[in-house]
Amino acid sequence: MTTTAPLAADLLVEARWIVPVQPHGVVLEGHAVVVDADRIVAVLPAAEARARYAPREHVVLGEHALIPGLVNAHTHNPMTLMRGLADDVPFMRWLKEYVWPAEAKVMGGEFVRDGVELAIAEMIRGGTTCCNENYFFPDVQAATYRRHGFRALVGLPVIEFPTPWAASPDEYFDKALAVHDTLRDDPLVGTSLAPHAPYTVSDASFERVRMLSDQLELPVHLHLHETADEVEESRRDHGVRPFARIKRLGLVNDHLIAVHMTQLTEGEIADCAEHGVSVVHNVESNLKLISGFCPAEALRQAGVNLAIGTDGCASNNDLDLFGEMRTAALVGKMVARDAAALDAASVLRAATMGSATALGWGDRIGSIEPGKQADLVAVRLDEIETQPIYNVVSQLIYVAGRHNVSDVWIAGVRKLAARVLVDVDTSAILEKTRRWRERIASA
Amino acid sequence: MTTTAPLAADLLVEARWIVPVQPHGVVLEGHAVVVDADRIVAVLPAAEARARYAPREHVVLGEHALIPGLVNAHTHNPMTLMRGLADDVPFMRWLKEYVWPAEAKVMGGEFVRDGVELAIAEMIRGGTTCCNENYFFPDVQAATYRRHGFRALVGLPVIEFPTPWAASPDEYFDKALAVHDTLRDDPLVGTSLAPHAPYTVSDASFERVRMLSDQLELPVHLHLHETADEVEESRRDHGVRPFARIKRLGLVNDHLIAVHMTQLTEGEIADCAEHGVSVVHNVESNLKLISGFCPAEALRQAGVNLAIGTDGCASNNDLDLFGEMRTAALVGKMVARDAAALDAASVLRAATMGSATALGWGDRIGSIEPGKQADLVAVRLDEIETQPIYNVVSQLIYVAGRHNVSDVWIAGVRKLAARVLVDVDTSAILEKTRRWRERIASA
Repeated sequence: MTTTAPLAADLLVEARWIVPVQPHGVVLEGHAVVVDADRIVAVLPAAEARARYAPREHVVLGEHALIPGLVNAHTHNPMTLMRGLADDVPFMRWLKEYVWPAEAKVMGGEFVRDGVELAIAEMIRGGTTCCNENYFFPDVQAATYRRHGFRALVGLPVIEFPTPWAASPDEYFDKALAVHDTLRDDPLVGTSLAPHAPYTVSDASFERVRMLSDQLELPVHLHLHETADEVEESRRDHGVRPFARIKRLGLVNDHLIAVHMTQLTEGEIADCAEHGVSVVHNVESNLKLISGFCPAEALRQAGVNLAIGTDGCASNNDLDLFGEMRTAALVGKMVARDAAALDAASVLRAATMGSATALGWGDRIGSIEPGKQADLVAVRLDEIETQPIYNVVSQLIYVAGRHNVSDVWIAGVRKLAARVLVDVDTSAILEKTRRWRERIASA
Repeated sequence: MTTTAPLAADLLVEARWIVPVQPHGVVLEGHAVVVDADRIVAVLPAAEARARYAPREHVVLGEHALIPGLVNAHTHNPMTLMRGLADDVPFMRWLKEYVWPAEAKVMGGEFVRDGVELAIAEMIRGGTTCCNENYFFPDVQAATYRRHGFRALVGLPVIEFPTPWAASPDEYFDKALAVHDTLRDDPLVGTSLAPHAPYTVSDASFERVRMLSDQLELPVHLHLHETADEVEESRRDHGVRPFARIKRLGLVNDHLIAVHMTQLTEGEIADCAEHGVSVVHNVESNLKLISGFCPAEALRQAGVNLAIGTDGCASNNDLDLFGEMRTAALVGKMVARDAAALDAASVLRAATMGSATALGWGDRIGSIEPGKQADLVAVRLDEIETQPIYNVVSQLIYVAGRHNVSDVWIAGVRKLAARVLVDVDTSAILEKTRRWRERIASA
């Protein structure tokens, strides 16, 4: 036996439990994660880690479960400033009487910047380290995510009607390419193409989206089969269901991030599996706006990559992926009529590896494995509400909440330390939020 | 105008918002609640309260909503020690392979005492000030609730088979009467008759329950129509659905607290309304064990008193009424196919006045009104996750969580102060919980 000098590393995190997500269902006790720069370099027993590494920083989390950072696969974060603007009202009233008038009054770069900033603070405190953004002013979004060191895929919006972001389809595409170009080599922020929905995007625009997606290898982030009305309308206007139309236009492939999908035939589920489509489940938004039940377990059983998102705060009303995982597990069982459906480990996988894969980042984030980015979340489990513990993964889904998140790292950088945000001016964010509330409430 | 000397009072609580629940949907801004001994004596504008009263204690909650204490209308609190013992398994396996073997090993007075103590700590921290208990050893439960100054209705169990609590139907009834007798004048703890379920209680025992309920004016706390299998089995064994059998036995009246009720005909809903039956909605348990969807909004629309419960921690897995209200509101909309169904104010009413009414205590608790018991809960709303605020009641249901509960009073006594439990030895509870976990896990 030879003695070797300890290896340098930036960070060593020991945790009572580590749930790496890959391999599936595994819980490591008394292990440690070694991080150098922005990457995980090793996952090994704590004693061995202490012997082999000489880290700059050594963190011991004695009553915590360490999990990969959660990935919110569908959100409209600037709308966090409209949290709870209109509840308990039907969808079209919600949109026409509340959301659109408010957006007409406030939409612009400042609104987007301040909304994203509030969202980032909420996401970090809740254990979310990456999001799939879908709103206007992606340039401002990207700058805000970069400034805060938060990982995001920003959608480049495409919609047929004019908004403060762009006046015509051509302008949407021109601006999309310009924003994409500025982010090509960014380590934290990437881009997707985000045609809004089948009912707001023409065949011609979808064809341009498909071509750009192929050429630039970009994901396509699309609201699809959100409601039965959407499906019916497409049959009337296009002669086919939206999924069939999208497929005809060449968009049913492994770039597609299909959001909502509450109305699905067995054939459509099989098509998603065969063509590598990712489906984002937004269970709470779908319930609240009575959009329908996404057949999440059936998709999973068919081999479709299942991701989880919160949707925007104007509809949900939070960015809480712990809540979303729990609701997905509970509702998923009733929808599948099987108490074993959407079990705890599978739901945790969906909100980490599943969402990461949907974003095209399955090789970069979503699990605690050597070589991956050090996006880590510690959940403290020694409180009254989280005891006793019989099964750690089950406790994370059915018992723990986002308020149990104690520590968060993104790309190896500490963002939350013992529940306190690092380098975030919380009171400034709250003050700006109050000012936007006054403007929006008077809209 | 005459000047009068200020009135003595024990406590004056000013809050930015007070949601009294009665009148329905009202939010009072800048008001105060005046408490003397265990009662609310006034609810009035804060300036007026300060001028008219000279309270011993004056609490100002500048960023909080004050609501009536939440009432958990169905729980099995000793089972809090089995939180998460068996998840993602079908109901009969859950019961036969996990719960019954564990209970056989640990059931007794100490298990009940320690489980209730853990539950009390969790309930207070989550804004629950009263519960409707359903388990064995009601004498031990009652003593534990009294010792902690926690309000509870303890069920006096009736079941046909022997348990460590009683060996025969006669012994169940004898012990029930004895426990009831010791609690007749207790200001905090009362009793109900708790025949377990139609499939575990004989007609003869139900008849004795009916007679005692009439004579002693006691509520009857009964699991009813929890699953489709239960209904089918009753049709086979008794020729009628359980509700019809219970009705034939004279138990469908305003003493009945019917728990679950996931399988209901229009006629049964009308019967509940006509006869003053209260229905307890346990939406998360019903989802997790795939029991079915309780038609909560249809019951409410028919005029049935709707209450909310968590069920026990072995199935749910928490005692979180904020979570339960939110899930009830979300799922209730999809079940009713109406985005306006189970709106925020109605769900809050169900978990306060609705549950209080079910327990027979609608004149004592459930709202912030003069003459009622001072069971008060403050929810802090100035954090990142709870801003901005457009509608306070909506924020309480769709945004706030139990971790936002800051202060709690029961019968005028402070039980939680700025998130810290008063007069509760948290570390002793956690230590005992860990020891029970070892015993149960090895069962």
